[in-house]
Amino acid sequence: MPLAELCQAAAHRLPIADPSCYAYGPEQGGAEFRADLADFLTRHYGVPVQAGELLITAGASHALDLVLTRLCRPGDTIFVEDPTYFFALGIFADRHLRVVPVPTDPAGIDVDALELMLRTKVPRLLYTIPVFHNPTGVTLPEERRRRLAGLATEFGFLIVADEVYQLTGDLAAAPAPLRTFGPGQVLSLGSFSKILAPGIRLGWVEGPPDEINALQDCGVLRSGGGVAPVMCAIVSSAIQLGLQDSFLERACRIYSSRRQHMISCLSRELPAGVRFQVPHGGFYIWLELPASSDAVAMLAAGEASGVSFRAGPSFSPGQNFRNFMRLCFVFNEEKKLTDGVVRLAELIRSHW
Amino acid sequence: MPLAELCQAAAHRLPIADPSCYAYGPEQGGAEFRADLADFLTRHYGVPVQAGELLITAGASHALDLVLTRLCRPGDTIFVEDPTYFFALGIFADRHLRVVPVPTDPAGIDVDALELMLRTKVPRLLYTIPVFHNPTGVTLPEERRRRLAGLATEFGFLIVADEVYQLTGDLAAAPAPLRTFGPGQVLSLGSFSKILAPGIRLGWVEGPPDEINALQDCGVLRSGGGVAPVMCAIVSSAIQLGLQDSFLERACRIYSSRRQHMISCLSRELPAGVRFQVPHGGFYIWLELPASSDAVAMLAAGEASGVSFRAGPSFSPGQNFRNFMRLCFVFNEEKKLTDGVVRLAELIRSHW
Repeated sequence: MPLAELCQAAAHRLPIADPSCYAYGPEQGGAEFRADLADFLTRHYGVPVQAGELLITAGASHALDLVLTRLCRPGDTIFVEDPTYFFALGIFADRHLRVVPVPTDPAGIDVDALELMLRTKVPRLLYTIPVFHNPTGVTLPEERRRRLAGLATEFGFLIVADEVYQLTGDLAAAPAPLRTFGPGQVLSLGSFSKILAPGIRLGWVEGPPDEINALQDCGVLRSGGGVAPVMCAIVSSAIQLGLQDSFLERACRIYSSRRQHMISCLSRELPAGVRFQVPHGGFYIWLELPASSDAVAMLAAGEASGVSFRAGPSFSPGQNFRNFMRLCFVFNEEKKLTDGVVRLAELIRSHW
Repeated sequence: MPLAELCQAAAHRLPIADPSCYAYGPEQGGAEFRADLADFLTRHYGVPVQAGELLITAGASHALDLVLTRLCRPGDTIFVEDPTYFFALGIFADRHLRVVPVPTDPAGIDVDALELMLRTKVPRLLYTIPVFHNPTGVTLPEERRRRLAGLATEFGFLIVADEVYQLTGDLAAAPAPLRTFGPGQVLSLGSFSKILAPGIRLGWVEGPPDEINALQDCGVLRSGGGVAPVMCAIVSSAIQLGLQDSFLERACRIYSSRRQHMISCLSRELPAGVRFQVPHGGFYIWLELPASSDAVAMLAAGEASGVSFRAGPSFSPGQNFRNFMRLCFVFNEEKKLTDGVVRLAELIRSHW
């Protein structure tokens, strides 16, 4: 956690802060903070990001909720990958949306299957995690990104790209964000949760001006003003002083080291018949057990032996992936990961 | 604005903060912050407030939205006062609710009219501003509070009491918060925006445990964790160090002085036939012009002469109160208020 960085940023900013940051701020987020964020993203994404196309949110979950509130109506159909981020399903439920799963394969969302589905029903929007997917770890290749953006233009739907893991992996493994392939159709969600700290609760939507305007015209933002102006001012200092850059570099070194370690432990310890695709970023590894296995049935025994994982069905609108489990490798040090993998391998063997 | 207070609170807290405040926090808000807030409210409300009955939000607008999201469904009917807080109408629209206005009189919501309406239709909830009302400045007397809570119990609906102005006025003029009269039926919304600073974007819901649990089970909170843990930690220090108490005292002295000043300017300058009820707290004075006047038609001329007010119809689901205008007295110093009232009186005379 960036304890020193946030102390330093707050000590730098608060005594000199523009008093307007204590008042109600503009719905879109303050101009200085959006400029700092655009500068940071342009440098790290490797593609230009415009301050005018950013709207500040209280994290990516709030960003998603805001998009659903302002760009969908209750009863609308949305498409999601199967599997998808399980907590997003709760956000869709709160907005009373019909959720239709789209199949995925080892390269990400199955664009051929999607095209067939679109001939029958065009959704209001499609929610996708195109990079270091949660839970699968998969990154959508450029060719599919182009096809996906093309389908959105052809059939007329929006794509909401949850790109919170974009900066968490090997640079060479992450293509340009999805908006590059269809700036008029894609809203990109980002968050400081994976690159600075979840507890500051800041994120953003990057999208076409019309959609950004529609998001701003939200009842809560009109009433309370933009998200957390004081915290935005502190993070502006973190960016301006280079603290966000240096912390991200440090976080990525840790993420990468734990990822490599987890992969080698799993390769060594897991019984034959358990498979996983090697991720190049993100927080997760998606284990596929033999088809007859039941990860849900293993949860209680896992908890008893101190092994924590999430069973596949919770990631699936149709409760598929019963023989899958998601492992997280970023929150524990190497020694604990080793120990956890040994216990997990025992658990799997004992359930065989 | 509490510049020095927040600098001091941040400098006190960040170096010693529990690192868990940088991580995802509990959906309800952290236990320490809720305990500090409960202590603060108990002392200032003069009635006991339990930490377990508080849920932390990003201000009162977010609190209202959360209540509507989790305790209503699209298409539900809610009752509101006529007039009511105009920005709340945008929040109701985002949640696709049917908004039915209830008449008010100089003592607040008309409980006799409400009882008649309830015999035909019981709403999912009633939204009320029982203290230093926005826009009318009126405070609901104890006897009506008792009647209102009794009706909620009898007919089975929830009351959402927007009590953000509870601590902004003369102590003797504010009865105990509405929950005192019906703890099982009332959710109270509060905010640091009027007592510390809008830019920190923190507020709360105080309510019965079942409803607090339902609010916690929200998609965004499940996904992103509780609201702004780092900012909560800083405000914990502001409360523990007594900075919140001293700032509130200072703010109230300023609010009161500007309120008295505004009242005496209006009494002196306004033409006969313009009436207002003297408020004892809050931020606003609600002017009633003669019935044939049109405050909407005066907006442009007001802007041209540097006088800012909000015309009555925006506070009314049915666009009533065309001959009313809301004046705000807290954001300008006495000299500016004097000047504004002189210009306003001219404006009114010129439109007569």
